[in-house]
Amino acid sequence: MLHDHLAQDLYTEICRIPIIDPHSHIDPHRPTARSLDDILGYHYYTELAHSVGMDHGPLAADVDPRERVRAILYHMTQFDNTAQFQWFLEIARAFLNYQGKHLDLADCSWLCDAAERLMAQPDWETQVFRKSNLEKVFLTNDFDDPLEGFDATRYIPCLRTDDLVFRLDTPAVRERVAKATNIEVGDPATLRRAVTALFEHFTRRGARACAISLPPDFEPSTLPQGNLSKALSGKHSAQEDRHALSLGVFWMLAEHCQEFRLPFDLMIGVNRRVYPRGVFQGQDLFDQRTSLLQYAELFNAFPEVPFCVSVLSSGQNQELASYSWIFPNVITSGHWWYSNIPAYIEQDARARLHAVPKTKQIGYYSDMYKLEFALPKYNMYRRILARILADDYIRPRLYTVRQALELARLLLRDNSRRIFNL
Amino acid sequence: MLHDHLAQDLYTEICRIPIIDPHSHIDPHRPTARSLDDILGYHYYTELAHSVGMDHGPLAADVDPRERVRAILYHMTQFDNTAQFQWFLEIARAFLNYQGKHLDLADCSWLCDAAERLMAQPDWETQVFRKSNLEKVFLTNDFDDPLEGFDATRYIPCLRTDDLVFRLDTPAVRERVAKATNIEVGDPATLRRAVTALFEHFTRRGARACAISLPPDFEPSTLPQGNLSKALSGKHSAQEDRHALSLGVFWMLAEHCQEFRLPFDLMIGVNRRVYPRGVFQGQDLFDQRTSLLQYAELFNAFPEVPFCVSVLSSGQNQELASYSWIFPNVITSGHWWYSNIPAYIEQDARARLHAVPKTKQIGYYSDMYKLEFALPKYNMYRRILARILADDYIRPRLYTVRQALELARLLLRDNSRRIFNL
Amino acid sequence: MLHDHLAQDLYTEICRIPIIDPHSHIDPHRPTARSLDDILGYHYYTELAHSVGMDHGPLAADVDPRERVRAILYHMTQFDNTAQFQWFLEIARAFLNYQGKHLDLADCSWLCDAAERLMAQPDWETQVFRKSNLEKVFLTNDFDDPLEGFDATRYIPCLRTDDLVFRLDTPAVRERVAKATNIEVGDPATLRRAVTALFEHFTRRGARACAISLPPDFEPSTLPQGNLSKALSGKHSAQEDRHALSLGVFWMLAEHCQEFRLPFDLMIGVNRRVYPRGVFQGQDLFDQRTSLLQYAELFNAFPEVPFCVSVLSSGQNQELASYSWIFPNVITSGHWWYSNIPAYIEQDARARLHAVPKTKQIGYYSDMYKLEFALPKYNMYRRILARILADDYIRPRLYTVRQALELARLLLRDNSRRIFNL
Repeated sequence: MLHDHLAQDLYTEICRIPIIDPHSHIDPHRPTARSLDDILGYHYYTELAHSVGMDHGPLAADVDPRERVRAILYHMTQFDNTAQFQWFLEIARAFLNYQGKHLDLADCSWLCDAAERLMAQPDWETQVFRKSNLEKVFLTNDFDDPLEGFDATRYIPCLRTDDLVFRLDTPAVRERVAKATNIEVGDPATLRRAVTALFEHFTRRGARACAISLPPDFEPSTLPQGNLSKALSGKHSAQEDRHALSLGVFWMLAEHCQEFRLPFDLMIGVNRRVYPRGVFQGQDLFDQRTSLLQYAELFNAFPEVPFCVSVLSSGQNQELASYSWIFPNVITSGHWWYSNIPAYIEQDARARLHAVPKTKQIGYYSDMYKLEFALPKYNMYRRILARILADDYIRPRLYTVRQALELARLLLRDNSRRIFNL
Repeated sequence: MLHDHLAQDLYTEICRIPIIDPHSHIDPHRPTARSLDDILGYHYYTELAHSVGMDHGPLAADVDPRERVRAILYHMTQFDNTAQFQWFLEIARAFLNYQGKHLDLADCSWLCDAAERLMAQPDWETQVFRKSNLEKVFLTNDFDDPLEGFDATRYIPCLRTDDLVFRLDTPAVRERVAKATNIEVGDPATLRRAVTALFEHFTRRGARACAISLPPDFEPSTLPQGNLSKALSGKHSAQEDRHALSLGVFWMLAEHCQEFRLPFDLMIGVNRRVYPRGVFQGQDLFDQRTSLLQYAELFNAFPEVPFCVSVLSSGQNQELASYSWIFPNVITSGHWWYSNIPAYIEQDARARLHAVPKTKQIGYYSDMYKLEFALPKYNMYRRILARILADDYIRPRLYTVRQALELARLLLRDNSRRIFNL
Repeated sequence: MLHDHLAQDLYTEICRIPIIDPHSHIDPHRPTARSLDDILGYHYYTELAHSVGMDHGPLAADVDPRERVRAILYHMTQFDNTAQFQWFLEIARAFLNYQGKHLDLADCSWLCDAAERLMAQPDWETQVFRKSNLEKVFLTNDFDDPLEGFDATRYIPCLRTDDLVFRLDTPAVRERVAKATNIEVGDPATLRRAVTALFEHFTRRGARACAISLPPDFEPSTLPQGNLSKALSGKHSAQEDRHALSLGVFWMLAEHCQEFRLPFDLMIGVNRRVYPRGVFQGQDLFDQRTSLLQYAELFNAFPEVPFCVSVLSSGQNQELASYSWIFPNVITSGHWWYSNIPAYIEQDARARLHAVPKTKQIGYYSDMYKLEFALPKYNMYRRILARILADDYIRPRLYTVRQALELARLLLRDNSRRIFNL
């Protein structure tokens, strides 16, 4: 509950707006959790438990899931101050009927039982959609995903391209491309044909975005004539090849986004495997020394491609707000990863609201692996949004309550509908 | 109106302090708007309209001004969440007697008519000065401005030096220098004589500051003996020459600021033409990867020159607060451009107030092209200042109300009077 | 007093928690001030007075201390808006019975008299400990400090290593090492023996941490075989040697922290002597362009060494919150120097509380030279902490008051006890 009554009332109304969630990692074949292990297996919990001393033991595949849950809950008392703990508490309250005040290890069995019982209901997915007021959820699909057998009214495919851009030098990825497209990539022409085939497959299957995460030093540009060809044939040292390949493939993807009228989600700033002994998905960190200036050539070259940009720091958010204010094709997108905690969401969202046209902002996305996380994550955002609307728009008499709610609707639903052409 | 009564009362009192506006782009021969087109022609509106999809068509010189206004108002519904929209709303209310709640395209004709009627009054400039409580406004003058024919009690010239520092390699600028000074610049000696002539002209005509905007990678330093001479005679490649020239001219300007006892306004961080297809003045952006450390040699070399420093990001504002706390000759100056929105003004102003001596802070400047913008822009700042004074100074019993208002007076008027020697 | 009653009540309770102050510059042989000169001689006052125009004259050793105090108080009217002035006001109120509202030059004699009278009391140190609720205070000891003759129940030695890492190329430091250890350092083996001897000496005398401050571009790494040896024998140019030495010694210190189970305090980001004409200790500044990525190799190489990391900017604090969330051995530590003002403490502390496990945060340290500063500096932090706990934890019903106070106890006392093994 929010202390401020106006903000609380706004929050209640904002929760009525159906959500289009433009970025998640949902497996549409298994979208919900089936146990508490599926909830606490989210890397936000395993990495925080590891951060306070849990070793890799409980995370092994052959460990009894309840033992794993018990280990994480045991360590959770050391991070019950975090936003991530609050997500878990809200899941327990909203989905598992937890009514206690002090969620801890003593609740383990009860919570596990409740989770297994409730999540086994045949309409659980529908219940979660309804309780969370979800309308549509974007997926993150490998380029060789067959995109078959899921409910296309709920789930929207999205072509994730990290492997193509950063690992096309590996035989494994080349083989996956060959298998997915029946094209052996060996030169720029076959590469282009393969990429086109992937875009055709994805758009036929309803994909509405292309997406990629990028390291802080990435600087997209066109390659000098011949460099991509050399890189594809492996004439240089491995590192030079990989770099040239990443630039060449990335640019080709942007060209395809233009041709296929797909927005390109750029998630900028992550270095992979900074802490290689970390848990799965808990090894990556950022370097604040990065600038959107690195993307100026790209933004200028593709004026018709909407670039939905996510960043990892408040410093870069200030750049993002400014670049989106100037470039017609730069959209602010969500509050990503290490920025996705209230202290940063609040200042980043306020800055965007003060500076960026309201039609160019995608307010939030869940980044979730299981549907149950939409509710607590969106609630975190909605509470902050309600406070900003109360303090910065309604009380200063810039907006009526109705206008404020229309703005919230753009941020949570309508901008995504329009930008991703749903 | 501010929700908090103490802050609202402070705001009312702060509005009674006459303003010395130490940086604007006012044309003293035509200081006020004559139509709504002059108001909405401000690049903040044209660039935001362009950002949401307006093409360059309506901005062409031969378009009927009312059609241009209509086009911008039409697109403005997409950015009525921004601080810039709020400025416009306050102008409409304060100067055009607009009393509606929902300013939009339907108000276009009425607003245009009101603007033309009211702004045509012979005492309009005086009305705007009085309503805005303006005392003096600094100008931004090209180095070859004759500085004649304007009201010197209201308008203070300022020598803007971007052309000298960054474009002296072009024949056009050399010719303008020759015309303005009767000196053909060909070597360091003639350059120095020309610069001296410009400073003499400006200070004779009442100039009180030298100013420049600088790219994020600029690092002033003395040149090795002979380099300026070579650069002036064009012996190197164009880019090397330009770089050496910029360093050499910049340093010479600082020497003249010392000799002529003029403060030097440094506006640090802008890259020009990042989005070359943007509207006029809507093409420049910043790169957060910059540091005031780049200016340490300069600050050390000219201890008697007050450097009034503006920055473009909150990250660099933290550096600015610290450098101004340590260097006697570093003054914090205003909230510039992309930083000039409430979310950033608030945190930047708070940090300066907590860390920098109150006599070394220039609270705000308008950066306006038409006088009507002083009122809404200063109001934005004054509201934030009132809140900070209430929450951080009066409620914690550090300051009485009277002391708080004295602080506000320093920020809005008296520091500028003293620093610029008015 | 805090405006918000819940926050005020929390603040009162938080003040009851005994403090373990994990970083100070206290001289245990003379821990308290003996005059107002000792208070206002703190570099925060001399540098701010210098920043508003005080020359070096009053700081000379032969100046009458009351004249120095008078000079600083005279200039203080120009910085009575700063957090540092507030510290002084609280010292005057809490320790000198000052009851006025407007502390200024007129109070000089009275304050000086009161200070001399009160501070001369034989139990003054004990009074200050009690009034400030101090339990233990860490020192900053040169590597050749004999660590004798002080109260080891109150003061905890800490091995400060800046000289070893950055100045071992100077004969003066080599001689100090030789004198302290009876080992002439000439190659990696003798260096290692000397460092081991220092660690043995310090840990025998109760040291609980190793500490160092580091420039923004420092990037610890292992040296190629042979480089340290060459650097120690001075075969390269001075700058190369110094760089190799700093890397080699730093790494060796980390190895010793592991062997001797000492946490390593890293204070990251300061450039020394940026303003060389500044007052003593008022010459250093930071460069925001730095990243904790530079420390990834170190954090990975020593998983068992707790690294207590301090940073100088909010930009880097966002990195710190994220690195501490991921790396088990990275601890967030205090609010250092230019970050130690309310505007930045507030956002930095909130971010850490939302993102970092509560057991991995050292809330605050005083960095003080005289014990009297613990009270106002910790009060500044405790007020902010109380507000965050009220707004972000208790009002949203995440924490009960009791849980909130337990969190405060970890931040102010218990985490330091555990991490430094007291």
